[in-house]
Formats: sequence, C-alpha cells, structure tokens
Amino acid sequence: MSGWDGWFAAQRSAREHAGVQRVLRPRPATEAVIDLAGNDYLGLGAHPGVRRAAADAALEWGAGAGASRLVTGTTELHAELERELAEFTGREAALVFSTGYHANLSAVTALADKHSLVVSDAHAHASLIDAARLSRAAIEVVPHNDVAAVRAALASAGDRRAIVLTESIFSVLGDAAPLPELAAVCAEHDALLLVDEAHGLGVVGAGGRGSVHAHGLARHPQVVVTATLSKSFGAMGGAVLGSAALIDHLTNRARPFIFDTGLAPAPTAGALDALRRLRGRPELPGAIHRRGGELADRLGVPRSAGAVLSVPMPSPRVAVAAQAAALAAGVRVGCFRPPSVPDGVSRLRITARAGIGEDRWATAVAVLSRVVDDHREGS
Amino acid sequence: MSGWDGWFAAQRSAREHAGVQRVLRPRPATEAVIDLAGNDYLGLGAHPGVRRAAADAALEWGAGAGASRLVTGTTELHAELERELAEFTGREAALVFSTGYHANLSAVTALADKHSLVVSDAHAHASLIDAARLSRAAIEVVPHNDVAAVRAALASAGDRRAIVLTESIFSVLGDAAPLPELAAVCAEHDALLLVDEAHGLGVVGAGGRGSVHAHGLARHPQVVVTATLSKSFGAMGGAVLGSAALIDHLTNRARPFIFDTGLAPAPTAGALDALRRLRGRPELPGAIHRRGGELADRLGVPRSAGAVLSVPMPSPRVAVAAQAAALAAGVRVGCFRPPSVPDGVSRLRITARAGIGEDRWATAVAVLSRVVDDHREGS
Repeated sequence: MSGWDGWFAAQRSAREHAGVQRVLRPRPATEAVIDLAGNDYLGLGAHPGVRRAAADAALEWGAGAGASRLVTGTTELHAELERELAEFTGREAALVFSTGYHANLSAVTALADKHSLVVSDAHAHASLIDAARLSRAAIEVVPHNDVAAVRAALASAGDRRAIVLTESIFSVLGDAAPLPELAAVCAEHDALLLVDEAHGLGVVGAGGRGSVHAHGLARHPQVVVTATLSKSFGAMGGAVLGSAALIDHLTNRARPFIFDTGLAPAPTAGALDALRRLRGRPELPGAIHRRGGELADRLGVPRSAGAVLSVPMPSPRVAVAAQAAALAAGVRVGCFRPPSVPDGVSRLRITARAGIGEDRWATAVAVLSRVVDDHREGS
Repeated sequence: MSGWDGWFAAQRSAREHAGVQRVLRPRPATEAVIDLAGNDYLGLGAHPGVRRAAADAALEWGAGAGASRLVTGTTELHAELERELAEFTGREAALVFSTGYHANLSAVTALADKHSLVVSDAHAHASLIDAARLSRAAIEVVPHNDVAAVRAALASAGDRRAIVLTESIFSVLGDAAPLPELAAVCAEHDALLLVDEAHGLGVVGAGGRGSVHAHGLARHPQVVVTATLSKSFGAMGGAVLGSAALIDHLTNRARPFIFDTGLAPAPTAGALDALRRLRGRPELPGAIHRRGGELADRLGVPRSAGAVLSVPMPSPRVAVAAQAAALAAGVRVGCFRPPSVPDGVSRLRITARAGIGEDRWATAVAVLSRVVDDHREGS
C-alpha cells in the first residue's frame, strides 16, 4: 500500500470521528419534499419561462460556448447579459464568469499582487480567501464587520495598493456589512472596496438591485462588486460589476477569466431571463424578507439580512439529526458544519424562499418549529 | 483622479504599446465563417442531438443545479455523467466540477499543502500553476517534458508528500508528455502523477479514451486525471478521474468544489450525450489526426499530438494581422500571444476539427496555406 492510500484512509477516519464525513446524494428532477436547502431564492431557476429560455439557448447556440471568452466564447448572449446586469445594478460595466468563484479569483488576482495589501473580513467566503492567497498580496484578516480595524489596516498600507474584501450579506450568519462606512474608509485611503453580493443581489434593495445600490454606492468608482448568477438568478456563473476601466483590466489580465471556457449558452440565457423577470416583478424579493422574518421569530433566532436563516445547533451530529428529522417530515434544509462555518458552530441552514406556495410555506414553518425545538432541547 | 484610475490607464497603455491589448468580440449564433478557433474538437457541442439533450435537461431540471454539490446541487444527471466518465476512461471513480479550472484547483489544493512538494512542468496550464500556488506547497518548476529533472526533484522531496503536474497534450505546442516514464518515476518515489487531459480526452487513444488509457495507466492508483467537458465533450465543466478514495477525499476537502454551485443541468446533460455519441463513433477522433497532419504538412510545422496546430509568427502584431487576413477569407483561427505562451513566441492557433464537411475543410486548408505564407515571409 502506498503512503497515499494510508493518508486518504487516515483523513477519512478523522472526518468520520468528527462527524463531518460527507457523501453526495443525487436527487431526482421532481420531488415531493419542500426544498429550503437550495439557493434558488426567488424560484426563478425553476420557473417554466426561465427553463424555456435556457433550453432555447442550448438549441440555438449549442451545448457550450466553444472556447474561452477572448477566443470565440463570447456570444451575443454574454454581451446582452453583461449590459443588462450593469444597467440593473447601476454600474458602468459588467463581466460574466463561468462561476462566482472565478469572479472573485479574477477580481482579486488581477488587482492585487505581491506589492499590494488585501484586508479581508474574517467571515469572507472561501472564494475570497482563496483569491487573496492566490494574489500573493500581504493579507490582513480583520475582525468581522470591524470598520475601525479596516481603517487601522489601511493606515499601515503605505505606498501599497490596497483592497478591502467583504460580502454585502454574509452567508453563514446572514448579517450585513457596514458598506457606507467601509466605502468612506476606503475612499480616505484610496483603497478599493470589493463587495461580494452573492447573497445580496436579487434579495436586498429596491427591486433586488443589491446592497451597493441600496446604499447609493453604485456609481462609486472605487467599489467593485462581484456576484453570482446561481442564487437569485437561478442559473450558474458569476459576474464582476464596476467601471469600464476595471472590466477592461480584468478582460486582459485575470487568468481565471482568460484561461477558462466561457459560460455555456443555457445558463447564460437562463440568468438573463431571470433578471428580466425580476425587473418585471420588483416586489418579488419582499417575499423572502416576510417569510424569513416570520420563521426567524418562530425559531427564536435573529432575523437575517438576506435569504438564509442560520439556526445554531449543539454539535455537527445534532445538526445532521435535525436535518434528517426535517427531511423525514417533508422539508429539506441545509446544514453548516466545519469547514463551512467561521466560528466552528454547526447550524441548520434554512432558505426563506419566494416561489413556493403559501400552504407549503406554512407546512414548512410548522415542521421546522417542531424539529428545531426537539433538537435544541433534547441534545 | 484616484491612484487606481491612473494605474488602470498605465496598464492599458503598456498593453497597447506591446500589441497585446484585447477586447471581447461577441459572435452571433450562426456564421458563414469556417471556425477553426474554438475547442469543439469533435463537433459534438454543436451536434443537434447534443443541443437537444442539453435543452431537455434545462426543461426538466431547471436553469441551474440550485446549490453546491454537497447540498442539493447533485442531480441524478451528475451521478450518471460521473459513472459514465469513469467507465469510459477505465478509472474507478469521477467527480464533475463546474469548470476545468475548478477541477485542477480542487485536485491540487486538496492533495498538497505547505508540507508538500509540487513538481510542475514548465509548460503546465495556468490553472495548474494557480492550483500549485494556492496549495501553499513548495513548488519546483522543471524544464518541459524533462523526466530526469522530475526524478531529481522527487529525490529531494524527503518525507514530504509529492505531486507531479503535467498535461497529456500541451495546449500551446501540441506535444505529448512522456507519461509512462513519468508514472514510473512517480511510483519509485511514492509520488502522485496528476495528468491534465484537457486536450487528450476525446482526441487520443482508442475511441478517444485519452492518453492515460492509451498508455495502460488507467488502473494505476497513483495517477490522477483531470479533464474538461468543454472541448471534446462540447459543453462546459471539468472532472477529476481516479480512485474512489481520491474522489471521496476531494468531495470532502476541495474548497473550490465544496463552495461552488454545481454544474448546471444543461451542460451536464450535453457532456453526457456527447460522451455517449463518442462511444458510438470510436472512429471520430481519427478525423482530427488526419486533418491535423495534412494541415501541418502543408504549413511546414510539426504535427500536433492533439487537435491544436501551433504556427509560430514573427510578432504579436503579425500574428494578429494573419488572423485578420484568414478571417477576411472566411476562416477563423485563434492566436496565442503573451501571456498565453510559455516562451513568449506568438502563434496562430488552428484547431483541426472533426464535424465540418470535407469541402469546407479543403477551403480552410487552402486559405491558411496562403495566409501563413504571406505573413511568415513578408513580416
């Protein structure tokens, strides 16, 4: 047996011991279960019209983009999506990536290098952490949502180009970043503020235009927005939104953009159709907040600024048991366990979704109230 | 004006001065041009049946996978594709990623850490270079296809876990790696050999099963294969193929897998249908080699081991001029320019494709012969 076999076995055994070993569970196309685990916040990924738009694009354009974006992988669909995303968020320009991960890797590595300083919120998403590491910049991790700590870090930047990384709505705790304060501190120090709107776009602000727009920062030239097309827009892919100069720079310099095949036509068209539907129904994000607020109150946890409600559990094992109990009662929820939590606390992850009927939502609330009570007390 | 505006402007000006400034050129769905720039090597991404399979999946499953693979983003489609990819390549298991970049980032970062040694071929793809950097391993870059240098690097590994990174067919020069020799050296030192088959799968070996299979290495437990679904399989996405223990490890530990939305249903189904069509037409990859050989001989350049023919040009500007001349004559080819070339030499990048008619292929050969002659001489 090679050393690698032993290493794989030891790693697996450690995961099993800690209760964090995971397996993939393939799901069928249609299920009776009420799904509050996924990220199709507005129900647009499952919308018949969005499905149709994605299908039509596959028929018209083929199964793939065929090449990287700079070769022949930019279709008119990509250009249209970029134009409408920029317009929707009030930004000058947009660039679409094949994943949200690529958007973050690209933005940070094309802007920062070993002569730069990256100041990163302690709760930043894995893709931002990886992006900062990959950039080879000096990295300063600051306490979560601590504006004073950001100011202190930037004061130490000296002549280095500096970038501050945050999310508008943080995925695990569901809390919001102090964007106006961060933007002001960044402006003082000529630093860029990169805001990942993965959980903000389609959820927060007028018509779901996101937190940056809601705070009047959309025309701020030093605010860089990254986003995903796989949550509110129901498809897959990512985007960077900012000045035309920024987008030109990324197009030419971002390795995870240049050396990657373009986003396939179907998800490109799906996201575009979802965006148009959201524009036509600006009241849609409101349902997320109404439902999320109601459920948070019932479960006795803080309301989320976004769509994801986070319910602390005593241990990874209890979290998994509660998740299984909810599923047995017809409601699928997610589960945050290490390494997906910033503080080591396992949680149920419940998506307050638009796009499911009132009766099914009421059923879900009843099931989750009971399950959470059972597992918080009896653990 | 902020320092950032000045920096963007200076960077752009430097690119323009060097003749490497690039812009995106959106293309329509159908074109009269003969496309030898893209990577749909077998013509399967544009095949009506593959388009239909992708479209049907969007209708049945929705525009997106809805969540990360470990939450609800694994559909039965993903499981089916993974099963059939493993079977096709003769490997124990497979894992599908949303891009080939994610596959490489995931494999390397989940296997190597700061206590490891990564030995990387000097011509390795950007995604492998980024993956090695992100892993925080010690990195030794060895001269291209130099087995003795790999042996020497591994001899210095000591107690560190070691991984050797290569591609089966290199994208720019189109040459092949000495896989049997590399696998033997890795076995001597208990190192893993990671082979990126982006340009090998669907192109090389019996029925397009790839270089690793062709060399009898498919059952070798210490050979890790990464692949793309965006070239021969005509869709988008990536895959890792290897032992069940490896795939379990990646599923649990690879951050770019765990923290990313699953590949959308349409490209998943498109790749699956393309794979099935390739199985049904094992003679298809042969057309690539016949055409590539014919064109290489006409242009007086070495034959490619894969689908991409690389034709050196005197400068980036001449390469761009030749590309424009070919396009004006109805043939689209690509262009390798810095930073996409390992040696700084700009080249035309011509894909020898199956899936276009003989008459159109003959036209393309005639046009390219003339254009290349004009630009090599008169530059």
